[in-house]
Amino acid sequence: MTWILGNRIKINIFGESHGPAIGGVVEGLASGIKIDMEELEAFLDRRAPGKTKLTSPRKEEDRPVFHSGLLDGYTIGTPIAFTIKNSDHRSSDYSDLAKSPRPSHADLTARLRFGDGVDMRGGGNFSGRLTAPICVIGGILIQLLRYKGISIGAHLYKVGPIIDANYNLLDLSYDDTEKLKNADFPTIDQEVGRRMQDYINEVRSNKDSIGAIIECGVVGLKAGYGNPMFEGIESSISKNLFSIPGVKGIEFGQGFGVADMLGSDHNDGMYYKDDGSIGYYSNNSAGIIGGISTGMPIVFRLAVKPTPSIGIKQKTIDLLTKKNVTIEIKGRHDPCIGIRMVPVVEAMTAISLADFVL
Amino acid sequence: MTWILGNRIKINIFGESHGPAIGGVVEGLASGIKIDMEELEAFLDRRAPGKTKLTSPRKEEDRPVFHSGLLDGYTIGTPIAFTIKNSDHRSSDYSDLAKSPRPSHADLTARLRFGDGVDMRGGGNFSGRLTAPICVIGGILIQLLRYKGISIGAHLYKVGPIIDANYNLLDLSYDDTEKLKNADFPTIDQEVGRRMQDYINEVRSNKDSIGAIIECGVVGLKAGYGNPMFEGIESSISKNLFSIPGVKGIEFGQGFGVADMLGSDHNDGMYYKDDGSIGYYSNNSAGIIGGISTGMPIVFRLAVKPTPSIGIKQKTIDLLTKKNVTIEIKGRHDPCIGIRMVPVVEAMTAISLADFVL
Amino acid sequence: MTWILGNRIKINIFGESHGPAIGGVVEGLASGIKIDMEELEAFLDRRAPGKTKLTSPRKEEDRPVFHSGLLDGYTIGTPIAFTIKNSDHRSSDYSDLAKSPRPSHADLTARLRFGDGVDMRGGGNFSGRLTAPICVIGGILIQLLRYKGISIGAHLYKVGPIIDANYNLLDLSYDDTEKLKNADFPTIDQEVGRRMQDYINEVRSNKDSIGAIIECGVVGLKAGYGNPMFEGIESSISKNLFSIPGVKGIEFGQGFGVADMLGSDHNDGMYYKDDGSIGYYSNNSAGIIGGISTGMPIVFRLAVKPTPSIGIKQKTIDLLTKKNVTIEIKGRHDPCIGIRMVPVVEAMTAISLADFVL
Amino acid sequence: MTWILGNRIKINIFGESHGPAIGGVVEGLASGIKIDMEELEAFLDRRAPGKTKLTSPRKEEDRPVFHSGLLDGYTIGTPIAFTIKNSDHRSSDYSDLAKSPRPSHADLTARLRFGDGVDMRGGGNFSGRLTAPICVIGGILIQLLRYKGISIGAHLYKVGPIIDANYNLLDLSYDDTEKLKNADFPTIDQEVGRRMQDYINEVRSNKDSIGAIIECGVVGLKAGYGNPMFEGIESSISKNLFSIPGVKGIEFGQGFGVADMLGSDHNDGMYYKDDGSIGYYSNNSAGIIGGISTGMPIVFRLAVKPTPSIGIKQKTIDLLTKKNVTIEIKGRHDPCIGIRMVPVVEAMTAISLADFVL
Repeated sequence: MTWILGNRIKINIFGESHGPAIGGVVEGLASGIKIDMEELEAFLDRRAPGKTKLTSPRKEEDRPVFHSGLLDGYTIGTPIAFTIKNSDHRSSDYSDLAKSPRPSHADLTARLRFGDGVDMRGGGNFSGRLTAPICVIGGILIQLLRYKGISIGAHLYKVGPIIDANYNLLDLSYDDTEKLKNADFPTIDQEVGRRMQDYINEVRSNKDSIGAIIECGVVGLKAGYGNPMFEGIESSISKNLFSIPGVKGIEFGQGFGVADMLGSDHNDGMYYKDDGSIGYYSNNSAGIIGGISTGMPIVFRLAVKPTPSIGIKQKTIDLLTKKNVTIEIKGRHDPCIGIRMVPVVEAMTAISLADFVL
Repeated sequence: MTWILGNRIKINIFGESHGPAIGGVVEGLASGIKIDMEELEAFLDRRAPGKTKLTSPRKEEDRPVFHSGLLDGYTIGTPIAFTIKNSDHRSSDYSDLAKSPRPSHADLTARLRFGDGVDMRGGGNFSGRLTAPICVIGGILIQLLRYKGISIGAHLYKVGPIIDANYNLLDLSYDDTEKLKNADFPTIDQEVGRRMQDYINEVRSNKDSIGAIIECGVVGLKAGYGNPMFEGIESSISKNLFSIPGVKGIEFGQGFGVADMLGSDHNDGMYYKDDGSIGYYSNNSAGIIGGISTGMPIVFRLAVKPTPSIGIKQKTIDLLTKKNVTIEIKGRHDPCIGIRMVPVVEAMTAISLADFVL
Repeated sequence: MTWILGNRIKINIFGESHGPAIGGVVEGLASGIKIDMEELEAFLDRRAPGKTKLTSPRKEEDRPVFHSGLLDGYTIGTPIAFTIKNSDHRSSDYSDLAKSPRPSHADLTARLRFGDGVDMRGGGNFSGRLTAPICVIGGILIQLLRYKGISIGAHLYKVGPIIDANYNLLDLSYDDTEKLKNADFPTIDQEVGRRMQDYINEVRSNKDSIGAIIECGVVGLKAGYGNPMFEGIESSISKNLFSIPGVKGIEFGQGFGVADMLGSDHNDGMYYKDDGSIGYYSNNSAGIIGGISTGMPIVFRLAVKPTPSIGIKQKTIDLLTKKNVTIEIKGRHDPCIGIRMVPVVEAMTAISLADFVL
Repeated sequence: MTWILGNRIKINIFGESHGPAIGGVVEGLASGIKIDMEELEAFLDRRAPGKTKLTSPRKEEDRPVFHSGLLDGYTIGTPIAFTIKNSDHRSSDYSDLAKSPRPSHADLTARLRFGDGVDMRGGGNFSGRLTAPICVIGGILIQLLRYKGISIGAHLYKVGPIIDANYNLLDLSYDDTEKLKNADFPTIDQEVGRRMQDYINEVRSNKDSIGAIIECGVVGLKAGYGNPMFEGIESSISKNLFSIPGVKGIEFGQGFGVADMLGSDHNDGMYYKDDGSIGYYSNNSAGIIGGISTGMPIVFRLAVKPTPSIGIKQKTIDLLTKKNVTIEIKGRHDPCIGIRMVPVVEAMTAISLADFVL
């Protein structure tokens, strides 16, 4: 369902795309911690639609209203609950979705799971809009993790044939991840970012969409967090990231490249540094061994499918007439959901790590 | 930790590699279900070491002793608990591990997490040996899922440069997955399997190890199982599979290939079949949309790192002398843990699906 | 914390007494179920303050605003989230609570648990006001349980020396519990109710408060619900009812009277009725044996402490000056919290049973 | 079910009375803690049958065999799993239970819950024998809590008309609770204990049984542990104690007496002691306010029903012939289960507190 139940931190996300509001609750934070609301809003703006021509131009008033758990900008130790009003529904855009499920949207599976009563207008509870409350909670946790010296930064690693710079497994630094927060477009190399935008523009002009790979790095997580087996760091991150609509794959470190690697290449040898701390000669494990952090940077990549909403005519069924029909999805949609998903990935990573660290 | 807490099915795995026993508990199964113990043992044999020259030849008496939850071979609705005795420890093989952590093993991270008191002989609670109780529980659940018409079959898709046949996303059949159960070597194409064995033999003769990609298919899962967000099918499968020591990546359907796909290529159009049921023109979603099953086959691939235990000299540290040293790991180890991991992947997949289906 | 995590139904309650709003989330309800909003508001009115002279006259606008999970008055299968705005704070009434914790309130323990940052104005997250969202969720679940033929009814069994009629363990009927919903005062015998009110009025005129015993009956729960050990029905009901501020005891059936009973008196013999169904000669088990329902009425009683807020001068400490001081609590408070707690007990009982039944 | 899932400590209990073994698993303990096995066995002996003439003389080899989580008598941070073999079944004693459920045993409700396949020989998973693994886990946790200065001691407060001394709410000391561990009979006043035994002997000679009230005290729990609402200390203790077969009521502090108390009597005023620490003038709250510990002793009482197994002829049904019949339960049974339940109450209390404290 829509709950994460950690041992310390518990989270719930609720709402439908075209219902009165969406929102969330997070519990388990210590009291007396300052939350920087301006920073939080800047973070939410990174996910908000309409920022560039490449993201859906619907005007959403994505400002959370906080109901509890905060006093004068400080946590008080009780559940933080908030809602974000829904508005600007062009419901007519979605009017015939009820009878004709959109290919590769959850329209049909949701109906099979929850019955005909399900509210799938705008994607309902499955909408990418539900990533807004995730960013509210994740944005708060990112601030709390930074107090512990932890920085999380994601970027668009690949869109179609265009590839951004790779995160360096061994030497990824706090500055590398932090500076992405102010980038106009979420690539390490801004020139590559411009080429990605050109490419996506072309896709959009064809009424089509394109998939992407997002890469995320975590710097500053000390060694010794995590658990063996079902509560390892990789298990936690992957579980939460697959909750983001459209994610179809995740790989840590060398990822699928390990099938071509010998143990003698992949193993990360250790040494004592001059100051007595432990260093690694390589970081193919990407900061996690046995589900537990090594102290080295965590790096993983996500496969994000092309936006299923496209303007091209598609084959589907009519649930009322029981006929095979075609559908042309109107309305305006992101040609590459990967762009707006970048801060969502950072938020979810923060959520995943918070239960171990806070 | 070592618990899976589904809404219906709860699982615990316990034990250390060189402690008295390993074992597990599973609760939430209905009563009155026949468990075929011979089939279960045949399944466990697929994971057992010593089967081929390519798997570690230690003789383990991997027979589970059941303590509760079963009567005359039938479930009775209460927790099924079992243990598997540990034996055949060549503790001398591991004698110096305490002071010199093995590269890319959990020796060091476990110590940082649990303190010096941790028992890491043979990998302790992090050992691949803990996949034996997973196979006991998964082997039981595979039988229960088959009563629902569901078949799960995994194979070695890639080892070094050798690639087995791919599972067909659209037309994967019950027979395709079932027939792997009797294969000598876990490939679809037995000729490819022989080449893989030759390749692995060569790696072994160099005292090295090699990574792998395992592909797993699920056939017969009806549409409508799963949940949005944090309890989607992909979230559940990925969380559990990353608990298997050595897994570094997972991708569903087209996986990381989606970054090169247009929405018009990736979307799975629908149609009514002559019998009124719903069909899909393609299955790039690999049987899951919005976290919920579509009724089409589920196909995913796992990246498995090379066995970290290799006979080649490696750089590490000596925790007692605080010096940089080298280590040569003695004992006999699988040159490709991917081989024995194939039934473990099937078991974990069954565990992941059982909470939705049973 | 403030979450109930059943196997099917998950609940969260949030908010502080003087924060912006309180509210809750409930997940796990089927879709397509009609919720009668008028009935729900009538139920909430039973808890609302200011109804009689004996309950606190603060005007609270205790109407929940629903944000999600409902469409046109029907459930849609997703989390139902709602908030209730806080208002009418006479904060000056509470102005010196911060430095002088009120005896037998959570003022001091909350501070020790959550630190000085905790917001204890009006009782904060510990306030009896948090029972309003419990009544919203419980009021919804009461409607859902009634579809299954289950009725829950509580009454004031004892206040000081005044005792209402006892629920009959063996013959409690659906009508017995349902008719309490329309009673002016929550007693079975309305004449007893008037005497209770006179007694409470007298206590109030002395600026004092009085404890109470509430009795609750459940009729129509079929046999076979519940679980052995930690998820038995008594475990679930007691855990949830002790969450209501002020509850200090619970007893089922003969309760503490069992210490004087012989097994031959207490055991509930069985017989076949003419229609082949199973009857019991007595119901000392109060509808639950081994944690599982027998099909007979469930009856339990709760001990509710006197309202800790009284107008009489009391001894306490001043946390700023570190001196022993006295406190006179101003503001208007219920002289017997037991009265308004009656529907809260029904709501919590519905919450406790819903996870087993729905 | 049979799992306790705290935020830190997770517990599972498994087994049937006449299955191969019973046992349990506990996870979440720190590593490097010495467990005194002799003390643990002495604790288990207090629950073991056959110690006095008044407890069932079946010889059970109630020694746990530990499989994991311990090394050389120290915890290692991983799950501690153990089993206790079942033996000495006089199955003939129970031979006709399958068809004639015993009044006020779970025989019938278990069958309705789990189906005819359930194994109810000797009470199955519902048997009082399952309190043995609870005592193993609780006995370990009692040792861990003592390292924190916490002592837990229970005694038989009332059996029929015989009443033992009451625990003093205000001045209960560490020695008061500890010295019960060496008592021959679990009363504070040994002379009262002798009279209780005489009374129980008389009940037994009549082939009957008698209920009891057990009182339990906790000394040394510092202020500030616990949570508001659903995870308060009272919620946790009550939930777990109602899991013990036969418990029908629990009350903290003044318990049901609060209905006769004025707020001015019940409220616990505070003062600064000379050393600057906070004292209470009274302890009617019994150490818990708002679900959180005050630092004062916790005292609660449990109502325990008479043993349902009695030698007197009782009315029941025959599930095979569908006739009303009588049953005479043979075999030897405790005439007062309250006696052996005393250490079980201590164990469960330790389990309840451990998740907050450890």
